[in-house]
Amino acid sequence: MFQIEVLLSPALLPYHQVQNKHVIVVDILRATSTIVTAINEGANHVKTVLNAEEAAELKGEGYLSAGERNGAKMEGFDMGNSPFECMEGKVLNRKLALTTTNGTKCFNAAQEAGAKTILAGSFLNLDATVDWLINHPADCIVLCAGWKNKVNLEDTLYAGLLTQRLIDSNVATTEDDGALMAMDVLQMAGSDFADYLKKSSHYQRLSHLHHHEDMVYCLKQSTIEVVVGMKDNVLVKFL
Amino acid sequence: MFQIEVLLSPALLPYHQVQNKHVIVVDILRATSTIVTAINEGANHVKTVLNAEEAAELKGEGYLSAGERNGAKMEGFDMGNSPFECMEGKVLNRKLALTTTNGTKCFNAAQEAGAKTILAGSFLNLDATVDWLINHPADCIVLCAGWKNKVNLEDTLYAGLLTQRLIDSNVATTEDDGALMAMDVLQMAGSDFADYLKKSSHYQRLSHLHHHEDMVYCLKQSTIEVVVGMKDNVLVKFL
Repeated sequence: MFQIEVLLSPALLPYHQVQNKHVIVVDILRATSTIVTAINEGANHVKTVLNAEEAAELKGEGYLSAGERNGAKMEGFDMGNSPFECMEGKVLNRKLALTTTNGTKCFNAAQEAGAKTILAGSFLNLDATVDWLINHPADCIVLCAGWKNKVNLEDTLYAGLLTQRLIDSNVATTEDDGALMAMDVLQMAGSDFADYLKKSSHYQRLSHLHHHEDMVYCLKQSTIEVVVGMKDNVLVKFL
Repeated sequence: MFQIEVLLSPALLPYHQVQNKHVIVVDILRATSTIVTAINEGANHVKTVLNAEEAAELKGEGYLSAGERNGAKMEGFDMGNSPFECMEGKVLNRKLALTTTNGTKCFNAAQEAGAKTILAGSFLNLDATVDWLINHPADCIVLCAGWKNKVNLEDTLYAGLLTQRLIDSNVATTEDDGALMAMDVLQMAGSDFADYLKKSSHYQRLSHLHHHEDMVYCLKQSTIEVVVGMKDNVLVKFL
């Protein structure tokens, strides 16, 4: 039996022991959903970078520059942070440099904290991620990207579902109050996540930015079979 | 209508706007429950201090020194952090200098962040606190002390109940995902909080330290009619 903890915000990372644990980074709307989609659509890898300058520099080395700040596309970038921009062959055999408001920072933070493995978690590749974790048993931290270090409902919902799935598979347990809260949120959400999330702050923020299609897409479960994780400082297909 | 936010850990405080807001600090097990009890039992005031040295210094000035670290009483202190130590006239007309693992730091942090008013929240004086907030309408932050900057269920449960009560009174609303989560936890807890909290990490920690009576006491609702808040850097009876 391995242990699962859920960190509802990246601001909680310094207070948890991370070494030798798998860290599953989740930023449902939209960084990790886009990363998983990009890898599934044949991108070679995704490199998460902290700022526009670093993305521009990598563009000079042949990368596609991708990203957003406060939910909107950045000037001079090849693409924003929508999973739909990764489809129809646009990222096939390409490398992506991605910078976002919340999610991309978490990969770097998890790496600095000494994580054993770092995965990109999303509803899209939930089954694949659950299976990988069952086959690579070790204590897990689900790291919710939140919104500017505040907690958010959609990442918490994913954390609750991943935790519940692993517990139901009899491979994991939890004594972590963050994980228990996330499972409570999952129970309260019922089966219609989109309806439940209508009350969430981030959902409303993205609605105003006309990202409704993205949100519908990002809540679909297990439509993608790949596991995405970090190897040699970039996010690649694990299987 | 005023807005309510819930901060599930003190680590989230730097990411929320605090100025001109009431901050309700909550550390159910046990700092704020003990503070509210002490004031109700006739203590002149409670001064929250950050370390044992400061408490010892105030003892020289006539204070009762009180506190715990990791749930246990501290050597050389007049008392620990149990509400029962405040009863039977022991704190009547006395000043207390209190230092604890989690709760006491939050008062200082809220003050430094520029809170309009700082209250000590507990289940014990829930009705009185709700009434005071209704009569002093301003945006509110419920600041959960947690455990060493980790989230915990019992403080979240109080935050959810206080939020729900204020919303049900038609004086407040929330767009904060932390508050929405806390209300979900409240719903999942049902009416038997003690039973629900058996799964929580802190409850189990205190159980091991034989604080069962304290826990039963700290979950009683609205047995105390006083409101406790900060004035001139110390916690006093507001009404």
